[in-house]
Amino acid sequence: MPALFKNALVMGLGVIGGSLAAGLKKHGIAERVTGYALANDVDAALRACALDSAFSTESDLPGAIANADLVVLALPVHLCISLLPTLEIYLQDNAVLTDVCSVKKAISDAVTLQLVRTAAQFVPAHPIAGSHLSGFEGASTDLFEGATVILAPCPNDVAFGRVRRMWEALGAQVEVMSNELHDEHYAIVSHLPHVVAFALTNTVQTLTEKDLGDTCGLLTPPVGKGFLDTTRIAASSGELWAGICVANQQALLISLDEFIVQISDLRRSLGQNDATGLRASFERASEFRQRVNLKQE
Amino acid sequence: MPALFKNALVMGLGVIGGSLAAGLKKHGIAERVTGYALANDVDAALRACALDSAFSTESDLPGAIANADLVVLALPVHLCISLLPTLEIYLQDNAVLTDVCSVKKAISDAVTLQLVRTAAQFVPAHPIAGSHLSGFEGASTDLFEGATVILAPCPNDVAFGRVRRMWEALGAQVEVMSNELHDEHYAIVSHLPHVVAFALTNTVQTLTEKDLGDTCGLLTPPVGKGFLDTTRIAASSGELWAGICVANQQALLISLDEFIVQISDLRRSLGQNDATGLRASFERASEFRQRVNLKQE
Repeated sequence: MPALFKNALVMGLGVIGGSLAAGLKKHGIAERVTGYALANDVDAALRACALDSAFSTESDLPGAIANADLVVLALPVHLCISLLPTLEIYLQDNAVLTDVCSVKKAISDAVTLQLVRTAAQFVPAHPIAGSHLSGFEGASTDLFEGATVILAPCPNDVAFGRVRRMWEALGAQVEVMSNELHDEHYAIVSHLPHVVAFALTNTVQTLTEKDLGDTCGLLTPPVGKGFLDTTRIAASSGELWAGICVANQQALLISLDEFIVQISDLRRSLGQNDATGLRASFERASEFRQRVNLKQE
Repeated sequence: MPALFKNALVMGLGVIGGSLAAGLKKHGIAERVTGYALANDVDAALRACALDSAFSTESDLPGAIANADLVVLALPVHLCISLLPTLEIYLQDNAVLTDVCSVKKAISDAVTLQLVRTAAQFVPAHPIAGSHLSGFEGASTDLFEGATVILAPCPNDVAFGRVRRMWEALGAQVEVMSNELHDEHYAIVSHLPHVVAFALTNTVQTLTEKDLGDTCGLLTPPVGKGFLDTTRIAASSGELWAGICVANQQALLISLDEFIVQISDLRRSLGQNDATGLRASFERASEFRQRVNLKQE
């Protein structure tokens, strides 16, 4: 297959951006891949020979954008939005602009508002993949193998088709979904679990320090796999996730409010020693979660 | 090594009881191992040739107890407590009585209250191991390899020493801890995460059905690994966990109340679009959780 793009510019070389940039290079999806990121991610990517070139100086951005026929926004969502004015000035007329943000309405609305000349070149995308690791050290060229990538419908069929083929060439399956439905769905099944995991981790730290005098926070005596699994994603980047939560505020507030109702109900049942009520609620959850397991297998 | 016990009786052949019974047999820790459990767990254990014999008829219990020099209580905690009067009548004078319950004060207090003749023969134990599976199908003879088992101090040195050696022969490391400290610690790092996972799962089911019309509860479009990990333990037995929560009510209420404070704080920050506040809280959690990862490695 000939390369889909001549010069790809990936902004952000974290887990997703780094994996995408390295995958574009490895599979020959772009002839030349350039990365723009923080100095330590640039160093890590170049050491791994994953890209053709990479830089971290902001003043080099205009030239790199002007030279690219594919630009991927893979920074935290608020930073992606802050780069739109620069893109509007320097993006080529026929270049494809896409992103990998976990929220889709905030960035799509910002594109519509801030990009006049180049808005139609933007294809909103969200690969359902990741890691609790941060930065290029968590990147891997096979991260998207078998993953689903959500694309939002886009008026520019050519740009949409090229982004779809890019993800398929990386081994992913593409699903098309409106920005609004995407943000509602992932508020529930991704953003809420992250907020819950952060709150649970802070609770465990607070209580083990306060009640058990575990001021080193090292959780002696040992913890079981249940704690480790429920809080694994709380090791994720706080900056990234604060940005995602604020960018999906409305949908996430609905999810959080329902969760607070549910946990408060359980707290009330426990306070009343209502084993029957607790059991019924736990069994409803267990039955649903086992069905999800069956579906995933 | 000669067998530590002649006739072991394990009551309950779920993940923990089944693994223990099969391990006692496999490693020759007991000469003869008998199981008492629900019919389907008895069938599964006998099919796997994991035990010498097993039964599910309650009227056979007195004879089996009278014949055992080791009795292990491995049923949900409220069922273990309900068997104490029978044990008081039939347990041999020199037999060892132990358990595997996830709460220690409730069962130890019940033993002190209900057993007059045999209380000193009881060694409270809690292996930090398990599975989201239920029943003998989740059992495995190497479940305790490398695991920690918490034992509470016990006035009978001989009984304590035999239980310690039993767990060490199964590959576990023994830590000694008071019942009170055990229950406080595991309320925080185990019981709370379970309640949170149940509430999160019910929230996801409620919202995907109500807001997204996903009445099959099959979570289309796809969910990421974050959701699967945070809710994995919500597939656990509702009966077992309702019993554990009620048996550790006091400590768990303290944990739940702190968690509700933490999640409500995050909800308030999000409502106020306070990205800085969210980020500070998320970063505190992330830093702590990464330290836990380093300790586990």
